[in-house]
Amino acid sequence: MTLTLKLTGKLFESDELVDVLKAVKDLSEKEDLAVVTGGGGLARRYIAVGRSLGLNEGYLDLLGIEPSRMNALLVALYLDGYKGVPRSLEEFVSVWSFKRPVVAGGFQPGQSTAGVASLIAEATGSRELILATTVDSVYDADPRKYPNARPLKEVRLSELMDILARDQDVKAGTYELIDPLAAKVLMRAKIRVRVLHYRDMRRYLQGEDVGSRVVPE
Amino acid sequence: MTLTLKLTGKLFESDELVDVLKAVKDLSEKEDLAVVTGGGGLARRYIAVGRSLGLNEGYLDLLGIEPSRMNALLVALYLDGYKGVPRSLEEFVSVWSFKRPVVAGGFQPGQSTAGVASLIAEATGSRELILATTVDSVYDADPRKYPNARPLKEVRLSELMDILARDQDVKAGTYELIDPLAAKVLMRAKIRVRVLHYRDMRRYLQGEDVGSRVVPE
Amino acid sequence: MTLTLKLTGKLFESDELVDVLKAVKDLSEKEDLAVVTGGGGLARRYIAVGRSLGLNEGYLDLLGIEPSRMNALLVALYLDGYKGVPRSLEEFVSVWSFKRPVVAGGFQPGQSTAGVASLIAEATGSRELILATTVDSVYDADPRKYPNARPLKEVRLSELMDILARDQDVKAGTYELIDPLAAKVLMRAKIRVRVLHYRDMRRYLQGEDVGSRVVPE
Amino acid sequence: MTLTLKLTGKLFESDELVDVLKAVKDLSEKEDLAVVTGGGGLARRYIAVGRSLGLNEGYLDLLGIEPSRMNALLVALYLDGYKGVPRSLEEFVSVWSFKRPVVAGGFQPGQSTAGVASLIAEATGSRELILATTVDSVYDADPRKYPNARPLKEVRLSELMDILARDQDVKAGTYELIDPLAAKVLMRAKIRVRVLHYRDMRRYLQGEDVGSRVVPE
Amino acid sequence: MTLTLKLTGKLFESDELVDVLKAVKDLSEKEDLAVVTGGGGLARRYIAVGRSLGLNEGYLDLLGIEPSRMNALLVALYLDGYKGVPRSLEEFVSVWSFKRPVVAGGFQPGQSTAGVASLIAEATGSRELILATTVDSVYDADPRKYPNARPLKEVRLSELMDILARDQDVKAGTYELIDPLAAKVLMRAKIRVRVLHYRDMRRYLQGEDVGSRVVPE
Amino acid sequence: MTLTLKLTGKLFESDELVDVLKAVKDLSEKEDLAVVTGGGGLARRYIAVGRSLGLNEGYLDLLGIEPSRMNALLVALYLDGYKGVPRSLEEFVSVWSFKRPVVAGGFQPGQSTAGVASLIAEATGSRELILATTVDSVYDADPRKYPNARPLKEVRLSELMDILARDQDVKAGTYELIDPLAAKVLMRAKIRVRVLHYRDMRRYLQGEDVGSRVVPE
Repeated sequence: MTLTLKLTGKLFESDELVDVLKAVKDLSEKEDLAVVTGGGGLARRYIAVGRSLGLNEGYLDLLGIEPSRMNALLVALYLDGYKGVPRSLEEFVSVWSFKRPVVAGGFQPGQSTAGVASLIAEATGSRELILATTVDSVYDADPRKYPNARPLKEVRLSELMDILARDQDVKAGTYELIDPLAAKVLMRAKIRVRVLHYRDMRRYLQGEDVGSRVVPE
Repeated sequence: MTLTLKLTGKLFESDELVDVLKAVKDLSEKEDLAVVTGGGGLARRYIAVGRSLGLNEGYLDLLGIEPSRMNALLVALYLDGYKGVPRSLEEFVSVWSFKRPVVAGGFQPGQSTAGVASLIAEATGSRELILATTVDSVYDADPRKYPNARPLKEVRLSELMDILARDQDVKAGTYELIDPLAAKVLMRAKIRVRVLHYRDMRRYLQGEDVGSRVVPE
Repeated sequence: MTLTLKLTGKLFESDELVDVLKAVKDLSEKEDLAVVTGGGGLARRYIAVGRSLGLNEGYLDLLGIEPSRMNALLVALYLDGYKGVPRSLEEFVSVWSFKRPVVAGGFQPGQSTAGVASLIAEATGSRELILATTVDSVYDADPRKYPNARPLKEVRLSELMDILARDQDVKAGTYELIDPLAAKVLMRAKIRVRVLHYRDMRRYLQGEDVGSRVVPE
Repeated sequence: MTLTLKLTGKLFESDELVDVLKAVKDLSEKEDLAVVTGGGGLARRYIAVGRSLGLNEGYLDLLGIEPSRMNALLVALYLDGYKGVPRSLEEFVSVWSFKRPVVAGGFQPGQSTAGVASLIAEATGSRELILATTVDSVYDADPRKYPNARPLKEVRLSELMDILARDQDVKAGTYELIDPLAAKVLMRAKIRVRVLHYRDMRRYLQGEDVGSRVVPE
Repeated sequence: MTLTLKLTGKLFESDELVDVLKAVKDLSEKEDLAVVTGGGGLARRYIAVGRSLGLNEGYLDLLGIEPSRMNALLVALYLDGYKGVPRSLEEFVSVWSFKRPVVAGGFQPGQSTAGVASLIAEATGSRELILATTVDSVYDADPRKYPNARPLKEVRLSELMDILARDQDVKAGTYELIDPLAAKVLMRAKIRVRVLHYRDMRRYLQGEDVGSRVVPE
Repeated sequence: MTLTLKLTGKLFESDELVDVLKAVKDLSEKEDLAVVTGGGGLARRYIAVGRSLGLNEGYLDLLGIEPSRMNALLVALYLDGYKGVPRSLEEFVSVWSFKRPVVAGGFQPGQSTAGVASLIAEATGSRELILATTVDSVYDADPRKYPNARPLKEVRLSELMDILARDQDVKAGTYELIDPLAAKVLMRAKIRVRVLHYRDMRRYLQGEDVGSRVVPE
């Protein structure tokens, strides 16, 4: 079965990187795996430098894509799959034809790597999109503001988008999870999403029902 | 000065195509011109065939991009500029470095050619994005439903997005004009938009204040 | 065994497209299949527009290649093979290395997609080139002019070229089948050709001896 | 004004190479110059080796294209123009957009570099195609067989093709000059051809009416 | 006149980045400028991560090239030149044909960006290679170890290589300056080198004789 | 198991070419094989021509790479593997992902094809690098000068580099075997080398311990 896995860019600044990538490699040997990596703090740093040079927002986005591709190359060289990093969905789809794990970073300005991951999940016919991030679950409100916010084991995508719209702070925190492009694509392609903390990848691999399920309704 | 011009795909199915492209060529000799072309009815036809074959939505979008590129090639071969069709913003930006007119169609699934045009207008530092379409103006309501809808000579982008959100039918009719990606990019890059009917390109070229101006506020 | 299949561009304007492509997919699962698609009426329409813009013949040919590639992409996205469209024989040959079905449209000005199909049949070592077209057989004269023209179950290539040379009208009608480049390549590589109507693809698949055989002598 | 110049591959095995290329460089500084180079004896040698390995004719042609590209690279690195070698007409046309001299070798199997030169002359709108070869003129019969064969100062293309068809030996000797693809393209694009010996390039550059003129009629 | 400028990767981690890049931009408007950027500490960080994953040295080098390209993209987007990053000398040379500033990072495993800069200086016929680094001069011994080490206003390349060979610590500190590939290329192409601290770029631009000159003898 | 095989360019000018390539093909069916080909005398001839035209050393190296790629294409078209020729290590590594034999020539100026072969041996994790050349063994001195020079069945790499440094004539003769880049890469990646005469390829294939072993110490 085919799975798409999005790894947050923050993972690549974490001490757990090696452990998590080992779990990802194990996963790639069990399933047909497409991986998308974010750019994390490094992307933000380069964008800040570019802004101080007066680059336009389009150029800043181009710049911010590069760290995500650098992370993708790291993962690609580690997995036993395609050892290049496709730069567009067209290129991804061509390379995916050869039935090996493929890893991508960002594709183009104006969209998040969550959007990229949704496009890839759709094009590969993935049965699930796994968002490996820095929160262990989706909550019904921003847990940093509301101490009694409750984690949601399962939530409908439309509901999740409502929570995000209602609570700006949650929105900021989970922007990376689901942006409008991602929501549109997940809905039209009816792709289930699993949100989990990257340090739970190993448990996921062992079949545990970790994190939250987002149903495309 | 730099301008980005979006030509609706419907133009390429119209008897006025040759006349309009002559005006575009004249414009390209006066200004630094980037052009984006839509895919029109041909894109919709191929998408319909692909759907009857059971292709996923991502593949359908890939398919729908091809007619827009075919239209772009037609324009590129006619203008005295770059005689290829860039397939991504990165490629566009590389080729644009050489200070010649460049023509693109779509870039990737999940976005309209209006989104592409906005990204290009931003990256090229265009002073204006011209949307050459099949309506002669922006209206304060759907003119097909409300006979006394008034054309707007100038409108703020936020206002226009409100009109579109309020009136689903207007939205459907002008979806091609401004989609969420386009709105986001135009706003952040503070790009003025001019909406005009393609048959008014010649008058625009002669300095007339045709169509509607959309102010990025 | 390896087969090359040329699908006429007219198929893509026909109601039987979906049925025929299903047969092609079945064929691609039984044999090592290379497919070439024509551009049909769409190519002629774009060429006509380009001509009214005064484009040179070389540019018109470049333009006419695009619809054939669009058709190729449709087929490529449907088959379980390489999901890109190679733009030259070199690129075709590189991708073919990975032992998956590959679909191409035109390659370059000055040659038909029949020429392309012959080059591909030769390079892939195909045991047969199937020309799926809009006639159910090769005839000994133009059946539209001579009511008692007889269908030929088998014909030598040199003989067929003579028929085509003798009868200009037949030539016009079957130009798409065998142009001089195709004839030269088929002869030197000793490739057998089968000419059949595209609606007989399913019967061909089931082992029937449909259409005409052209022997490379 | 634009000119296309075809240099026979034999030049690259000759002692006059440096002198001739100096004249070509001077020409490239006076005119907008496109250059095409043949592969000469080196191409034939590699094809022979490939044949002894049992490669198919398509692969042999691919192999024979490489020496022509090697010669093209030599010329490109020497001229003050584009320092790469386009591998297809599409690529040529894209690079030519930037108004610098461009040099190509062969493009694809099944055609001569004379065919390539014709396609390029057409696409660039060249006012003349110069065929710099090893004969100083076109003759009305094979001069090696008929001692009183007369050089032709001017000849119609149709007439020349008749001479070539009538006299197989002339055909063999001048095959490189005009093959069927070249004839077809030159005729439809109404391109004048000048046939001259490569050692007369300098005299041509100085305005002398050297060699033969072939009129596209 | 043509200049090649190598910017140390450490610059991109410094507060002086914006000031230095402004001087580089001014330089690019006065001279034909090729720029090469290093990868700095970021390259070392990614290589360390890759090593902890057990990647081979070749993959580690591939990984370490990416940060240098990211820095190159930042500079390319800021200068008024080619807004892409060539990935090999061949690609560099092709793009350089169009007479615009071009910026590159690393090219391939097994060589430093100083090697890349030497290859580029040679291929572009640069009259000087400027190595903008973190030392203000070349010394006759390691200044960190020998307090009375003297700065050298001018030094022969062979002499400098001797100093580097004699004093391992100097070698470590200036390895980035001149590696064996760089030395070989600079010597054969007779390219003068100027070693200066990046914060002296503005003074260099104003015509001051800052840093050290290395003579290719 | 993975092997990298370097074939000297001189092989391609030898009568034994076909026999040797047959042995290489047999080897490619038993092992995961990467092949690198040299450019031989043809490379030297083109470099000489380029030098007489006054090309810089960088351009001469670019020119000298082409014959090695032409030889690579010959081998690639003959083997049952990837039928293209990667132009950089990045491209090699991407194509190698698909687990088919791949053949490369040179990559870039300033390095030998032995350097290329070492980089490829490292990146592919080859258990051995086979250098098929024109000597049947490594010797403890130049056998052309010292009649009682002894062949070495096994030698440490550091020792071999000492022999090469001590005896300039040996160095000249075996320069092709191990250049500084190759030595550095072989050492860091701990790759065993086997030096043999190309006419012993068949015996090697049959398991004989032909030629010399170089141990990476």
